[in-house]
Amino acid sequence: MRINAMSAELNEDLKLRHARMQSIMAEKGAEACILTGNANLSYAIGMVLDAYFYLPAEGEALLFTRKSLPVEGEGIFPISRPEQIPEILEREGYSLPVTIALEEDEISYREYIRLCNVFKNSPQIANANIARTARQIKTPYELNILRRDGKKHAAFYNDIPQFFDKNMTDLAFSARLEYELRLRGHLGIFRTFGTRMEAHIGTLLVGDNAAYPSPYDFSLGGQGTTPIVPLGPANKPIPENASIMVDLSGNYSGFTIDVTRCFSVGKAPNRAKELHQAAIEIMLTLAEMGKPGTPCNLLYEKAIEIVKAYKAEDCFMGLEKQAKFVGHGFGYEINELPVISARYSLPLEENMVIALEPKFIIPGFGAVGVEDSHIVGKNGFESITSGCPLEILPLD
Amino acid sequence: MRINAMSAELNEDLKLRHARMQSIMAEKGAEACILTGNANLSYAIGMVLDAYFYLPAEGEALLFTRKSLPVEGEGIFPISRPEQIPEILEREGYSLPVTIALEEDEISYREYIRLCNVFKNSPQIANANIARTARQIKTPYELNILRRDGKKHAAFYNDIPQFFDKNMTDLAFSARLEYELRLRGHLGIFRTFGTRMEAHIGTLLVGDNAAYPSPYDFSLGGQGTTPIVPLGPANKPIPENASIMVDLSGNYSGFTIDVTRCFSVGKAPNRAKELHQAAIEIMLTLAEMGKPGTPCNLLYEKAIEIVKAYKAEDCFMGLEKQAKFVGHGFGYEINELPVISARYSLPLEENMVIALEPKFIIPGFGAVGVEDSHIVGKNGFESITSGCPLEILPLD
Repeated sequence: MRINAMSAELNEDLKLRHARMQSIMAEKGAEACILTGNANLSYAIGMVLDAYFYLPAEGEALLFTRKSLPVEGEGIFPISRPEQIPEILEREGYSLPVTIALEEDEISYREYIRLCNVFKNSPQIANANIARTARQIKTPYELNILRRDGKKHAAFYNDIPQFFDKNMTDLAFSARLEYELRLRGHLGIFRTFGTRMEAHIGTLLVGDNAAYPSPYDFSLGGQGTTPIVPLGPANKPIPENASIMVDLSGNYSGFTIDVTRCFSVGKAPNRAKELHQAAIEIMLTLAEMGKPGTPCNLLYEKAIEIVKAYKAEDCFMGLEKQAKFVGHGFGYEINELPVISARYSLPLEENMVIALEPKFIIPGFGAVGVEDSHIVGKNGFESITSGCPLEILPLD
Repeated sequence: MRINAMSAELNEDLKLRHARMQSIMAEKGAEACILTGNANLSYAIGMVLDAYFYLPAEGEALLFTRKSLPVEGEGIFPISRPEQIPEILEREGYSLPVTIALEEDEISYREYIRLCNVFKNSPQIANANIARTARQIKTPYELNILRRDGKKHAAFYNDIPQFFDKNMTDLAFSARLEYELRLRGHLGIFRTFGTRMEAHIGTLLVGDNAAYPSPYDFSLGGQGTTPIVPLGPANKPIPENASIMVDLSGNYSGFTIDVTRCFSVGKAPNRAKELHQAAIEIMLTLAEMGKPGTPCNLLYEKAIEIVKAYKAEDCFMGLEKQAKFVGHGFGYEINELPVISARYSLPLEENMVIALEPKFIIPGFGAVGVEDSHIVGKNGFESITSGCPLEILPLD
């Protein structure tokens, strides 16, 4: 498969991605894999289409596009219904697969069953997660974009103070920052894996709003202004003494960079300052410790060890509801693999990317903590968003 | 089920919604229905939770919430896993359902199968669509919010010209309007049904960008700035003569109001003026014609009749790719039922809501057309967004 409109560099990079998926397919015993979700298509073909991407265990990928979409190249076939795929495969000399891997986590039951019926003689490989597993390891093309956009997002964070005015509500401050991001090319879209997350660009959490037990799988989410979208600013004035935690994504090119910095107004309690330092210590310690081969749960355990030394177990990653992770992969979606949690024991691999986000809640003041996005290099973590200071920055 | 924190008015309204779902369940032969997707929970319980809503064919609904979320009331049970639901049902004197309806369109294959296994002796009712079908008919509580937010969104459209500057790019103008919406309480979130749509608030399409054949199921979508998110402004200067079509959602309370108005710079070709009038004629004719009992496809056929009278079949609802509908339901998601298309022959019912959006593409100038959101009243359509003029408004 080759898309004419794409650069040679990207077409080459797509081949690496296909090869990586094929090696996972070999491990899982899948003779073919079909992708149609937006995040997986972004990975497999570098774009979103109304299309089905077909990858055999060996050989060239094919693309089946629906509707009159402007995509030309090799191995691309227009269809109106996925039911046409098998006859085209046979016509092109592809044997129909015996086993097939579908996106059981990314598409609806109905879409899944429709594809099962298209390949009715091909048993599905359960829990294959071909694309999601492959996407963990970033390619050279992706790493270039992540480094470039990471720098851009860190620069945005350095500019945040100039957009603040103490008479703003939390919502108005968030809106002002979102506006600035959009002017800098942020796409607005916030893609997530699964149905338990959704957000508008990210969250800005002032004071005790950060402690709201979010129904979403975020570390901290905020209460928002309606229980139908319980997320983000509460549209309230900024109190005299409060933290302002800014966790806005940096999606300038389809890749979601994740950074958090903590700002403040008024006086920060000593415990807030202390636990903010604890968060910095956790992030830097984990970044120092993590190398290809390090089991993810070891990083989490190290984080908890530091949390315990500060006697802060009760307010780490939330109060009433505490998130059970301290970091995660990111990329086409905000919550990619791996997860830095007690239950995730697989080792880090070179060119994974990890956002580390240790955070604490100080009742009456708000959230403290930091988050940087990292690439797992051969010799250890490389922060791609380190261009902005880690300390709490007073805005008044 | 009763949520203490909610107003008596909303708790009463939820009962109407449950009763409506139960009558659809009776038609479909479902003895129970389970909802867990965000849009359906918003409908069934008035909020998003990490939870499972359980509705028996007769009697009171129950709510099973995960994690330590702050919801108290009657018929609410904390769980850590959905596998605990059957034993709680039995303990509470509910008999296990023989047949069950799940959200096959809203949740992933994996989530669906997990729930199937929880109720392993209960066959699933296929194509039940209980909540999506029920949601078509708005309740008194929902209609109040829609009328209020419709008025608010029309007022926003009246203010649009003051935010324009001819030196802006299309992206900068869109960002400025999005900012204004957020300051007015827009939630940012744009919920869609299915995986073939996603957007950031909506789209602002300048000139020929409106003609881009969108891979999404939008009428018009724009090319965007990256093929990974092919949507919206292209980050280009505004040309000398161009239409600026603003189709930004009004989601102030969790309900997505849909309005489009057309602005312009420079000189509009006569054909653009003519087809803009055709669009107004289509919208007003359909709104005049539509009553409870009118089959949806009749409205679509009427639209096509007018399009043909203007000899504009080739540029109606797109150029290279033409959307095959002229209106749709809306509410918790932008694309609810019914659909005003040739293939959708079910009749309108009282208290459905319909966004009518006839649009044409004029190559070299851009899109023209209008969109208003309507409630289907006993005697016909009531526009809830008519407070802003339909004509093309020059911005220079």
